[in-house]
Amino acid sequence: MIRIAVDAMGGDHAPAVVIEGITIALYDFPQYEITIVGHQGKIAHYLEKYRIADHPRVKLVHAEDTIEMDEPATVAIRGKKKSSITICAKLLRDKEVDAVFSAGHTGAAVAVSAVLVRTLDGIERPAIATVMPGMYGKYILLDAGANPDCEPINLVQFALMGEAYAEYFFNMERPRIGLLSVGEEETKGNELTKETFKKLAAMPINFIGNVEGNTIFENITEVVVCDGFMGNVLLKTCEGLARSTMYWLKGVFTKNALRKTSAILARNAFRELKSFADAEEAGGAPLLGINGVMIIGHGSSTAKSVRNGIKVAGEFVEYDINGRIIKRVTETGALIADFESGNKN
Amino acid sequence: MIRIAVDAMGGDHAPAVVIEGITIALYDFPQYEITIVGHQGKIAHYLEKYRIADHPRVKLVHAEDTIEMDEPATVAIRGKKKSSITICAKLLRDKEVDAVFSAGHTGAAVAVSAVLVRTLDGIERPAIATVMPGMYGKYILLDAGANPDCEPINLVQFALMGEAYAEYFFNMERPRIGLLSVGEEETKGNELTKETFKKLAAMPINFIGNVEGNTIFENITEVVVCDGFMGNVLLKTCEGLARSTMYWLKGVFTKNALRKTSAILARNAFRELKSFADAEEAGGAPLLGINGVMIIGHGSSTAKSVRNGIKVAGEFVEYDINGRIIKRVTETGALIADFESGNKN
Repeated sequence: MIRIAVDAMGGDHAPAVVIEGITIALYDFPQYEITIVGHQGKIAHYLEKYRIADHPRVKLVHAEDTIEMDEPATVAIRGKKKSSITICAKLLRDKEVDAVFSAGHTGAAVAVSAVLVRTLDGIERPAIATVMPGMYGKYILLDAGANPDCEPINLVQFALMGEAYAEYFFNMERPRIGLLSVGEEETKGNELTKETFKKLAAMPINFIGNVEGNTIFENITEVVVCDGFMGNVLLKTCEGLARSTMYWLKGVFTKNALRKTSAILARNAFRELKSFADAEEAGGAPLLGINGVMIIGHGSSTAKSVRNGIKVAGEFVEYDINGRIIKRVTETGALIADFESGNKN
Repeated sequence: MIRIAVDAMGGDHAPAVVIEGITIALYDFPQYEITIVGHQGKIAHYLEKYRIADHPRVKLVHAEDTIEMDEPATVAIRGKKKSSITICAKLLRDKEVDAVFSAGHTGAAVAVSAVLVRTLDGIERPAIATVMPGMYGKYILLDAGANPDCEPINLVQFALMGEAYAEYFFNMERPRIGLLSVGEEETKGNELTKETFKKLAAMPINFIGNVEGNTIFENITEVVVCDGFMGNVLLKTCEGLARSTMYWLKGVFTKNALRKTSAILARNAFRELKSFADAEEAGGAPLLGINGVMIIGHGSSTAKSVRNGIKVAGEFVEYDINGRIIKRVTETGALIADFESGNKN
């Protein structure tokens, strides 16, 4: 049995869609046991509606507080210690669950994970990994926002974590890893990426060199590594441009009657582009490198994406992604120690 | 008469489309005098074809070399001193022309400008400004790639330069300026942006605070400021995603006969999205902050975009963007000096 805690209060449409998503997950994944963490008074109605309060694979844990989206992330550590995400992290720390899913405040989820759950041995900073759509298939981008300021050694560890995730996600050996920069050549980039390039080139990974903002869409690597500031801006830029494109297309399609007709015919095509913009399918982004599994869903998660997020959380446990990361960190420990002593010289 | 030097050898389709673009510009802008800088043997055929060799507003300057796209930018300074872009920069330095347009190697254009033409008094680093499409209109992004590593003071100067450009481009007073970051709050960002936020907030500009990767498309500011690494990745990401979207749309539109019909009807709609991806309209991106006018065109420039780039070059001179930048730098000089002494403490 895989034990997953779900933050019932996290997300724009919580707790309604979260409880609905849990209900679907209970049917779809009979090997999962779900601990619903939330304000019992606020979720009672939905537990009743979906008849899961007494489900044999459901546990309920009360959480007095919720972190609102406009609160600083540190509230989860300092002010609201009884918030649902803080309690989820404590369950994970105390090994009472194997994984957590939350569609709430991303910063708060990162903060409680870093402070309460801590990182794996040999990993200095956790990173958010996001699955992005490329032209012909998907790729994994990390860090998508956990660390605004990074050192080269952090990016090297992100590469190892991304490799382990990609092995699971793409079901392949030696996934290709690229470093996001402003030119293919080793000499192109900023100080961070130029130093990181040298270190990645010395690692026993399938490092193919620098990739650029346009070539990342050409699926030339399974993993793209960057700092969390860059990754977060890139992710949101894609979201913004996808929404803008939908808006522009609607405009050109409704300019005249002929185009209106074609727009009606092409309704399904639109639906596909929209599903990309909403990114419902992916379910959630894992926070890699912590001593447990934490999957962070999009704030606008639907019941289906909550179900998908719970699925990913369970698969991370089954596939033992953390065990793979530890193995790779151990194998390359001597090299990384060399880098670090080199940094201090 | 506005004197503009055009790099005839720059761009994927040079010199053919460049000479064609010059020909159109000569007709459209009777107040421009154009110095065509290029290998006379290689451009003779096109000068003949378009009958402009003896045009009263054309001068010819021979350039023995060309910087190839895969050469390092420094070649323009060290190895190929007789390259077309290097000669263009020298003409600008010696005040023999007022402006330069080149669709060649961007790095080389930046390098010769920085080394030969030098920056305006009070500006430490030049920045590439690009006009980007937002949901409802356009906005100006800078730096789009001249400086991979920046200090807060550089971003503050970029804001002043962006303001002057926006006043011209949008024909408005006090354009709104945003700082690209990962959250709206002053406390969100990396070390660079958090320090820059404080400085921008103290400047006599219309600074509206942080903007994010998604909100930049909502036209909440006329100017978006970021370092050149970020800007370059962002720009190329938009290019990559626009191309991917075209590819996906073609796929969904050709899945069945019904959709094929609608795709044929919607041909014009596609054309509009494609024109965005190609960015032909903008013509070129100015390198702001140098002691002259340098407009850098896209490598894939068509004759029309060369014509548009020459137009922008001339308008920069007419509108005296550099005079406006100097005025703003002088007005805020005391404040900036304070920042700089503060940095040294």
